Amino acid sequence: MPNRFGKLFSITTWGESHGGGVGVVIDGCPPRLPLTAAEIQEDLDRRRPGQSDLTTPRKEADQVIILSGLYEGRTTGAPISLMVRNLDARPEAYAEIKEKFRPSHADFTTQSKFGIRNPEGGGRSSARETIGRVAAGTIARKLLSIGAGVEARAYVKRIHDIEMPATDRFPSVEDVEAYPVRCPDAETAQRMADRIRQIRSEGDSVGGLIECRIRGVPAGLGEPVFDRLEADLAKAMLSLPATKGFEIGSGFEGTRLKGSEHNDVFENRDGFIRTRTNRSGGVQGGISNGEEIVFQVAFKPTATILQKQKTVDLEGRETELMGRGRHDPCVLPRAVPIVEAMASLVLVDHWMRHHAQTRSFELPA
Amino acid sequence: MPNRFGKLFSITTWGESHGGGVGVVIDGCPPRLPLTAAEIQEDLDRRRPGQSDLTTPRKEADQVIILSGLYEGRTTGAPISLMVRNLDARPEAYAEIKEKFRPSHADFTTQSKFGIRNPEGGGRSSARETIGRVAAGTIARKLLSIGAGVEARAYVKRIHDIEMPATDRFPSVEDVEAYPVRCPDAETAQRMADRIRQIRSEGDSVGGLIECRIRGVPAGLGEPVFDRLEADLAKAMLSLPATKGFEIGSGFEGTRLKGSEHNDVFENRDGFIRTRTNRSGGVQGGISNGEEIVFQVAFKPTATILQKQKTVDLEGRETELMGRGRHDPCVLPRAVPIVEAMASLVLVDHWMRHHAQTRSFELPA
Amino acid sequence: MPNRFGKLFSITTWGESHGGGVGVVIDGCPPRLPLTAAEIQEDLDRRRPGQSDLTTPRKEADQVIILSGLYEGRTTGAPISLMVRNLDARPEAYAEIKEKFRPSHADFTTQSKFGIRNPEGGGRSSARETIGRVAAGTIARKLLSIGAGVEARAYVKRIHDIEMPATDRFPSVEDVEAYPVRCPDAETAQRMADRIRQIRSEGDSVGGLIECRIRGVPAGLGEPVFDRLEADLAKAMLSLPATKGFEIGSGFEGTRLKGSEHNDVFENRDGFIRTRTNRSGGVQGGISNGEEIVFQVAFKPTATILQKQKTVDLEGRETELMGRGRHDPCVLPRAVPIVEAMASLVLVDHWMRHHAQTRSFELPA
Amino acid sequence: MPNRFGKLFSITTWGESHGGGVGVVIDGCPPRLPLTAAEIQEDLDRRRPGQSDLTTPRKEADQVIILSGLYEGRTTGAPISLMVRNLDARPEAYAEIKEKFRPSHADFTTQSKFGIRNPEGGGRSSARETIGRVAAGTIARKLLSIGAGVEARAYVKRIHDIEMPATDRFPSVEDVEAYPVRCPDAETAQRMADRIRQIRSEGDSVGGLIECRIRGVPAGLGEPVFDRLEADLAKAMLSLPATKGFEIGSGFEGTRLKGSEHNDVFENRDGFIRTRTNRSGGVQGGISNGEEIVFQVAFKPTATILQKQKTVDLEGRETELMGRGRHDPCVLPRAVPIVEAMASLVLVDHWMRHHAQTRSFELPA
Repeated sequence: MPNRFGKLFSITTWGESHGGGVGVVIDGCPPRLPLTAAEIQEDLDRRRPGQSDLTTPRKEADQVIILSGLYEGRTTGAPISLMVRNLDARPEAYAEIKEKFRPSHADFTTQSKFGIRNPEGGGRSSARETIGRVAAGTIARKLLSIGAGVEARAYVKRIHDIEMPATDRFPSVEDVEAYPVRCPDAETAQRMADRIRQIRSEGDSVGGLIECRIRGVPAGLGEPVFDRLEADLAKAMLSLPATKGFEIGSGFEGTRLKGSEHNDVFENRDGFIRTRTNRSGGVQGGISNGEEIVFQVAFKPTATILQKQKTVDLEGRETELMGRGRHDPCVLPRAVPIVEAMASLVLVDHWMRHHAQTRSFELPA
Repeated sequence: MPNRFGKLFSITTWGESHGGGVGVVIDGCPPRLPLTAAEIQEDLDRRRPGQSDLTTPRKEADQVIILSGLYEGRTTGAPISLMVRNLDARPEAYAEIKEKFRPSHADFTTQSKFGIRNPEGGGRSSARETIGRVAAGTIARKLLSIGAGVEARAYVKRIHDIEMPATDRFPSVEDVEAYPVRCPDAETAQRMADRIRQIRSEGDSVGGLIECRIRGVPAGLGEPVFDRLEADLAKAMLSLPATKGFEIGSGFEGTRLKGSEHNDVFENRDGFIRTRTNRSGGVQGGISNGEEIVFQVAFKPTATILQKQKTVDLEGRETELMGRGRHDPCVLPRAVPIVEAMASLVLVDHWMRHHAQTRSFELPA
Repeated sequence: MPNRFGKLFSITTWGESHGGGVGVVIDGCPPRLPLTAAEIQEDLDRRRPGQSDLTTPRKEADQVIILSGLYEGRTTGAPISLMVRNLDARPEAYAEIKEKFRPSHADFTTQSKFGIRNPEGGGRSSARETIGRVAAGTIARKLLSIGAGVEARAYVKRIHDIEMPATDRFPSVEDVEAYPVRCPDAETAQRMADRIRQIRSEGDSVGGLIECRIRGVPAGLGEPVFDRLEADLAKAMLSLPATKGFEIGSGFEGTRLKGSEHNDVFENRDGFIRTRTNRSGGVQGGISNGEEIVFQVAFKPTATILQKQKTVDLEGRETELMGRGRHDPCVLPRAVPIVEAMASLVLVDHWMRHHAQTRSFELPA
Repeated sequence: MPNRFGKLFSITTWGESHGGGVGVVIDGCPPRLPLTAAEIQEDLDRRRPGQSDLTTPRKEADQVIILSGLYEGRTTGAPISLMVRNLDARPEAYAEIKEKFRPSHADFTTQSKFGIRNPEGGGRSSARETIGRVAAGTIARKLLSIGAGVEARAYVKRIHDIEMPATDRFPSVEDVEAYPVRCPDAETAQRMADRIRQIRSEGDSVGGLIECRIRGVPAGLGEPVFDRLEADLAKAMLSLPATKGFEIGSGFEGTRLKGSEHNDVFENRDGFIRTRTNRSGGVQGGISNGEEIVFQVAFKPTATILQKQKTVDLEGRETELMGRGRHDPCVLPRAVPIVEAMASLVLVDHWMRHHAQTRSFELPA
């Protein structure tokens, strides 16, 4: 079950960087959702390597195949199996790391855990694993959009120390996709791209922050006490490679405020109960309150760098390793659709759970 | 299942602030663990209200009763049912909030979700729910201690803007328990206590950071891709009331480093493969690497303040609410044992899952 | 998780025969269901020992306490904790079986599994464990009745070789409760009671069949491929002590028919699609078809008999054991409400799962 | 999750009769198990259509592809994705059943549940779905064989009214595979084959019983109170298409015995605690007792018959349907490897669960 996510809308991803391919099985999808491979492909293309000069040059078309679960263009309620073949594999590039552990990678821990490890392209810990998440995310996004009026939008907020100005505006897809770096602020996007190119030329890497906002979520989603909405979002985000932190609403900075400064007072706005501020980030007591859900995810700098680093080999002997292979100097631009996918998967699952408990039986109000 | 946590060492908590009591059922506990009510009581006493002048004056002995699962002082493998009675309930204090939603509390969202709400003491969203977690945590801690040599230690790192100096030292229980505020640095602990008293005198509240360190964890714990160790820790922490953020290792600050600055290079120390630095926080690729696990949790200021606040009533009419009732001006001192409990629960569950997959069958190395 | 049943309407039972009590936590119950302790008590009284001269003379009032999850007489959506105290415990009666394994009991296997065992009254493997199931079952039955128009009715069909005549009639509660043996056929009930009394006088025991019929289930419940409705019913029934078999519809006898004799042809009856016969037992392809669900459960004769039997002790030495203690010469009369409870729990869970997948999102028909 | 089976060794099957293929993802497989596609193929060939004149003439090579989870011929602990393409699809053969519900098939119930249905070859309810189970079963069987010394053997015990003589002998693979009908008794096998051929010539179908025996299971497997070994076996078997009943040990017939006749007394045989008889079927109190596990599964006659049957169409109008298409006049011979696969999957999962709870931590005996 370690490769499964979601309780009712449940996905299981499979595949390695250099094996027969990568894929996902979605179990529990509602029936009668119209769906095409082209829709999934559109999201995969946002995640795909080689899409701009800011990403790894690995050439993968990442062409999705729908193997099951559809009939005449609609989901049937049966499991949906999606697959992408690995094409541009270069196992020979990994001869050295078969013997040496790359610093801050999963090589050593994987070997320690299983006593065996597929070194080619990082095997199962390759970011290619997230292809299945993005593909499943397309279905989740469509369910939310058609069936619930909910929309998640992620974007790069900070790269290294370059941060976009704060804004209340919910960015459009076009805003985010306008720049390869996927920051919706034009001027910041340009500076971020320059920084990434410069860092890449140094054989180095950078990290940063992705922010995600979700609108249209009605009050009531979230399953306390353990499956609070923010708890499941945090888990989803920390399950992504290279993430080191999660915060919602006022987050870490909010801990410097006093209660009287931090509380979101209620008001009646146009007949609806709303909060005047949104330091809660759209979630109170683990349940959505109808405001925008806003959270941030910290991504560390890519572990692969094109520099010589000290390390040890399989027998524990100290040695050196020269970074090689194709990699992203900064994972954030390609991580944006992945964050959106994971957020959407969490919301669909909570939507279904909420309805199961509170709407299945007809009980007096 | 929203009130269940853990897959193999699984706990289900139940109970409200003012109902018949609160409790927990632990399912899947290994057999033959020696256990006494006194051991559990010791941890509950650390969480208990009224333990110092920094906490709520609510008087609860929080006396634990073991209802099942033990025989002659040892666990039998059967479910362990633990219960604490509610004694110092004052339902009459909640007449007003039955009609009005407290800002930044779970009142509005609970009502929105379920169409019904137990307003007495916050009902299910009361921090009393965490009693069950702490009680189960005692068992998890003991399993880790006796059966695995693993130990988790949490402490208050920052209150409001008062932060303890950075240290590499793993604090002892005595260090942490020496001061009611549960910060192991004497000088900082004093200033924190002063700040809490001052804030309380203003009818206000503060938040801060809790840090947790875990030592003795061997390389290999964690279940990628979704149940990475940090993902489950993040979920555990964000499932606690009043938490707004989680970071592991270098966390949010680490995103400002370059890869060459951030990577933890491996070395051979005394015959063991170790990392020279620990920006990873003890986890790489979702699996423990044998270094200390270090993470931080952000707690917002307590939502209950003894001041008049604007809000709305059940019908959405704007009104005002004067904070009343017994509450903590700062939840962090009492949250320390809860963070330790949750961390221990995550580790026990992962320990069992790791052994199940990699040690159950005898297969060639 | 071995003590948990159900995925969305999830119960966890706890407790031993002679510990502090037995109980259950229900997680995921829909909110706003009116519920009283008296309703639960009514079902517990049907399961209670000492209710007639056909059952064990153990004296247990089995008085239920509701500890959480209700507010002003209605469920809140929070976990419902129910408890019954053990009163008439006689640990001293179990000194001998602490050292010797009772034939066809769980003593030897429990000891083998856990390396420890609570021998008093059978510990966790006592039928008292089913108290929690029956208590949770009351809630499930009420949800089905109020919110779905579904009703399960179990009754004793055969005791030893005394079988009631076949009938198409759905028996009323009154029919079943009219006789202590819980067979709705008056003449058969009398013969069954006589047989049980005679067998008891011989210090022996008997088993038999319980049949359960469920009406009002609409077409569509069941979750293939693995969680077929009959698969979950089978699991529920085989999870009961003393059960050795399950069959649905035509069952074992139906395997002697040819396809042309066994198929249930469809017809249009009063505007509804119905099957002319019901050899399928209300389930086709793992999903309910709108016909009555009919299944049977085989209960072996009670393992405890008041006769001398050969056995071995803890060290494997051959010895003899004289049956003692209070026991039921035939478990079936008291098992009737348990079968109804488990069937209802399965149906509520499937009802919620079905609605979650097919009704949560508004999608075109 | 309806398409997932197993908690620790967890499989998710996907695919329809006429879609892109069928497959399975195995999550949680222990690392370092040697595995080849040829081994899986061998089991699939036992399940394959067209293997003898007793089965459907549909031509499917059922060639398995391993897509992930292996490295250099051994499992890595990562998910194992297995796929078989559908080749001999004839969607045009299903034009009529797109409009009409086949009696005792899943057509009507699937349409009722989901509001949509893939009619080609029965879609998801086709027996082709079991390919994934058999493929995963190969891995489970190998784990049990190499790592635990456990072996499951199923065989056809009765076809229609032709039953093999009772025997205590554990049949070898060769015994079972010697005859296409998979009954290890030569004379009975011949009569069964004749009966199937005769029934097929009448355009009719038959059912029967499969018996499964498992040897080498140590005392201690099984997870009461709900996940008793027999409960999970019952669920596994009732999750198979066409099954109507399950019984273990003495089963339904045993309910006609008295306790004094039914109990399995313990004895010391060669230093081991054994039962003299095995009416328990190897399981007591839900836990294996070290004796052979023996259970039987009832399979109804195939629903597809080559005769004209009354039925209704999508609009509920009464009509007639002439059976067409390729089908098995008796599913039992091909179901034998499926029963073995499911039994092995249950045992591997229980083996891992048992070790997780009782062996992960080092606790005093």
